[in-house]
Amino acid sequence: MDDLTQPLVHGNRRALSRAITLIESTRGDDRLRATALLAELPHRQALRIGLSGTPGVGKSTFIESFGQILTAQGLKVAVLAVDPSSARSGGSILGDKTRMEMLARDPNAFIRPSPSRAELGGVARRTRETIRLCEAAGFDTVLVETVGVGQSETLVADMTDLFVLLLAPAGGDELQGVKRGIMEIADLILVNKADGALRDTALRTVADYAGALRLLRKRPQDPPGYPRALPVSATTGEGLDKAWAQMTELAEWRREHGHLATRRAEQARQWFLSELRAGLLARLDRPEVRACLRQTGDEVARGALDPAAAAAQMLDWLAAARAADS
Amino acid sequence: MDDLTQPLVHGNRRALSRAITLIESTRGDDRLRATALLAELPHRQALRIGLSGTPGVGKSTFIESFGQILTAQGLKVAVLAVDPSSARSGGSILGDKTRMEMLARDPNAFIRPSPSRAELGGVARRTRETIRLCEAAGFDTVLVETVGVGQSETLVADMTDLFVLLLAPAGGDELQGVKRGIMEIADLILVNKADGALRDTALRTVADYAGALRLLRKRPQDPPGYPRALPVSATTGEGLDKAWAQMTELAEWRREHGHLATRRAEQARQWFLSELRAGLLARLDRPEVRACLRQTGDEVARGALDPAAAAAQMLDWLAAARAADS
Repeated sequence: MDDLTQPLVHGNRRALSRAITLIESTRGDDRLRATALLAELPHRQALRIGLSGTPGVGKSTFIESFGQILTAQGLKVAVLAVDPSSARSGGSILGDKTRMEMLARDPNAFIRPSPSRAELGGVARRTRETIRLCEAAGFDTVLVETVGVGQSETLVADMTDLFVLLLAPAGGDELQGVKRGIMEIADLILVNKADGALRDTALRTVADYAGALRLLRKRPQDPPGYPRALPVSATTGEGLDKAWAQMTELAEWRREHGHLATRRAEQARQWFLSELRAGLLARLDRPEVRACLRQTGDEVARGALDPAAAAAQMLDWLAAARAADS
Repeated sequence: MDDLTQPLVHGNRRALSRAITLIESTRGDDRLRATALLAELPHRQALRIGLSGTPGVGKSTFIESFGQILTAQGLKVAVLAVDPSSARSGGSILGDKTRMEMLARDPNAFIRPSPSRAELGGVARRTRETIRLCEAAGFDTVLVETVGVGQSETLVADMTDLFVLLLAPAGGDELQGVKRGIMEIADLILVNKADGALRDTALRTVADYAGALRLLRKRPQDPPGYPRALPVSATTGEGLDKAWAQMTELAEWRREHGHLATRRAEQARQWFLSELRAGLLARLDRPEVRACLRQTGDEVARGALDPAAAAAQMLDWLAAARAADS
């Protein structure tokens, strides 16, 4: 049994941090150890909530307030980030724990910044495995946040039980800014900043989104009335209790009707398949293979070899190297 | 030497059609034969032009008129389609040769519809290889058309020398409908329907796009004045000669300055790498592997196996099966 297993299962935060660092490592021996560790951890199930919101919508303040509502009820909350853009912008959106100062100090909360090397496939693996670690460490709720860019929302929805979209109050014309595909995966739309001068605008925005949601095709995994939109204020805390009540109501309904189990089973199967594909392609990353790849690529680039023929030749070479290995 | 090689190199259209059918086949022995055929074909270079335009912009009429301008000059023109959506809509956009009746009857033109099973990766391979076949068969110009959906434009730009965007006349507000990424890969923007009642609107649209193009970052592969926008009318033929003159001017400049050679070398290298990745992943498509995949996937789905551990186990199994093979 791995040294980390026992303390991690007992909720030791340092062990959890070290386990996450382990699964983020790309070293071969670390990967082997991470796989073995994951395989021996007990299966506990947190409620996994995906949360997306573009910058400026007040996501940090929302997580800070929302997280404290949960911890005040005695729940243990982990916050993870999927941020494929952080590599480019040079800094992690979640790296700065001062973003959520109160929650970061809360003994029942665990905030893990997005890793700095952030390629979408790698982030996906790391986050799925980190969710598993947090669950094994006894967290009841895992919040996976992402910025609304590219395919990160779909990725997050594919590893969580519920998907929440946090939006800013806006004029009706801007509704179109939310892509139809994102609307279709949302379980709950929260319109933030429903306070002060923006309150009326927020309420109108909620009505607009509620209307748009009604136009979507009914999904079998939804109880009557879902997906739905509601106003919240991360600053005053208004609406946050209700949002949490609706999340638990929805999750409970799905659990009772078998939809949660089906969704997780399908997610696990997809995870397995993408791990397998990544594992096959990882062969191309070995130093001796990369040297050969570069050389063959050069021959192709200068026209001495046909791309398809070069690929076939390289596949034979890989198979021979493999056979010689074993 | 393959039976198809000689007639194909002499421009025999039936041999070309049969060779394309061969490369479209997914049967293992056909694939081997296709790879060998491609490797023994001489390297001739046509001007490869990518053309994108959303439905309704008059793309068929444009290709019909434009193609005939080229064949009237004694040039041999091949028209291929990249249409990943045709599988879903149930019919190929280019399947109907009546779309370009005159060009289809022209002995110097060759029109090949999009294959009916159309998955983006498969279409890419098929189109790249078909371009090679058309070049070997002596075509001077290969026009690769695509509808403006998803990633197909980037795909087409990555296999051609020039990328042309065909647009409809529109009000200034609609400029935003063209994504910035597409503007950035366009070498020439043609605003169609610059005739009759729409003429003035078309000219204004050209001015708008010309302004937008000037705001983009200067690319080293562009001579002064490029990328540029100009009005055309596929119906009256107006502007088509000029469009062709600009395409050849641009291509000539790039050839002289070495940019065409660099671009093709890089494209060939990328093609090789994507063939190689596809070849590695193709192992998962064998019947005996698929049975094992399904079974392991089921165990993962019901929680008996961890996804990462299952993937590691499956990779070992594949390596052992491979070693036993050789």
